[in-house]
Amino acid sequence: MDYPSKIVEEAVRQFSKLPGIGKKTALRLVLSLLKQEDNEVNAFAESVVRLKKDLKYCLRCNNISDDDICGICADGRRSKEIVCVVEDLRDVMAIENTNHYKGVYHVLGGLISPVDGIGPSDIAIDPLLIRLQVEDVKEIIFALAATMEGDTTTFYISKHMKNNDIKITTIARGISVGGELEYADEITLGRSISARIEYKV
Amino acid sequence: MDYPSKIVEEAVRQFSKLPGIGKKTALRLVLSLLKQEDNEVNAFAESVVRLKKDLKYCLRCNNISDDDICGICADGRRSKEIVCVVEDLRDVMAIENTNHYKGVYHVLGGLISPVDGIGPSDIAIDPLLIRLQVEDVKEIIFALAATMEGDTTTFYISKHMKNNDIKITTIARGISVGGELEYADEITLGRSISARIEYKV
Repeated sequence: MDYPSKIVEEAVRQFSKLPGIGKKTALRLVLSLLKQEDNEVNAFAESVVRLKKDLKYCLRCNNISDDDICGICADGRRSKEIVCVVEDLRDVMAIENTNHYKGVYHVLGGLISPVDGIGPSDIAIDPLLIRLQVEDVKEIIFALAATMEGDTTTFYISKHMKNNDIKITTIARGISVGGELEYADEITLGRSISARIEYKV
Repeated sequence: MDYPSKIVEEAVRQFSKLPGIGKKTALRLVLSLLKQEDNEVNAFAESVVRLKKDLKYCLRCNNISDDDICGICADGRRSKEIVCVVEDLRDVMAIENTNHYKGVYHVLGGLISPVDGIGPSDIAIDPLLIRLQVEDVKEIIFALAATMEGDTTTFYISKHMKNNDIKITTIARGISVGGELEYADEITLGRSISARIEYKV
């Protein structure tokens, strides 16, 4: 495609670097920005710049935060004895939305993935290992994706934990609530049988 | 959803104002920006700011341009006697890609749409009518969407043209090349019959 303007071409190139955005969608987004008022477009650009300039990462759990310590870590009502290890902010938000968890988090910022060139030192594993040594943690819950990368990361961290008194758990894998068995894939169904739980009346 | 940071929340709000981008997609885009380097994110923001600050509209055809007159209008090899009226830049690019058109364009920047509060004065119709009076135009081709809005706009402009010597045409509507009749909708098929063309051997 030949763009009539270098400025539009550059903006399209920038947008199409984002995940899931192709050239056509990028052009649609750029044209919609062009139809907005100057101050709206500047507010858009400013919000993007601030992401890098003003955003902080919680010194304790590595979650995105406006302050040095995030709201969850600073919350005195939450148990600091349980740490839930997640990949990113979206997982924190998803778990928070369940209202089922009252511990704290540790955000890795990624998963070990040799294919993508992401090793243990590229994500926040060392800060987690140090944290487990200096804080009084009783249980660590791995809530990572049920993929090769998630399993590798869970395995790597659990093998490198120096403190053996900490209980290690992972979130339950199995049939979704409301899910029908015939539509579940074989691996999930197989795992849900081998990891069957006692039925309590 | 509760965001752990006002800065992320604001960026998500800004992204989700774009067409086809919901809150979840916006968050995904914001998180991918967070993973980019500072200079990449600043280049992204800069390209957005430049859209409003440096981009010009061709004084002749209203197309987006880096200069006062766009590359197509400035091209001496293109016929200035045929003007193709389109909605926006994407249509210009689509027609240019066919390599079937060697005239010039007029970009309206929208279509008349009373439902959305867009009247004739909100789009570049007056500049077109003036252009048709001062330039030596022999034919005007309406290449607008085959929708109520497109048809209304074509009708409005053709009724307001003062120069009666100009030939008015619209692009052909009908069955797509390679298209099968049974999959065509009734309106398209009906129109393609009533607008049938003589078969020349």
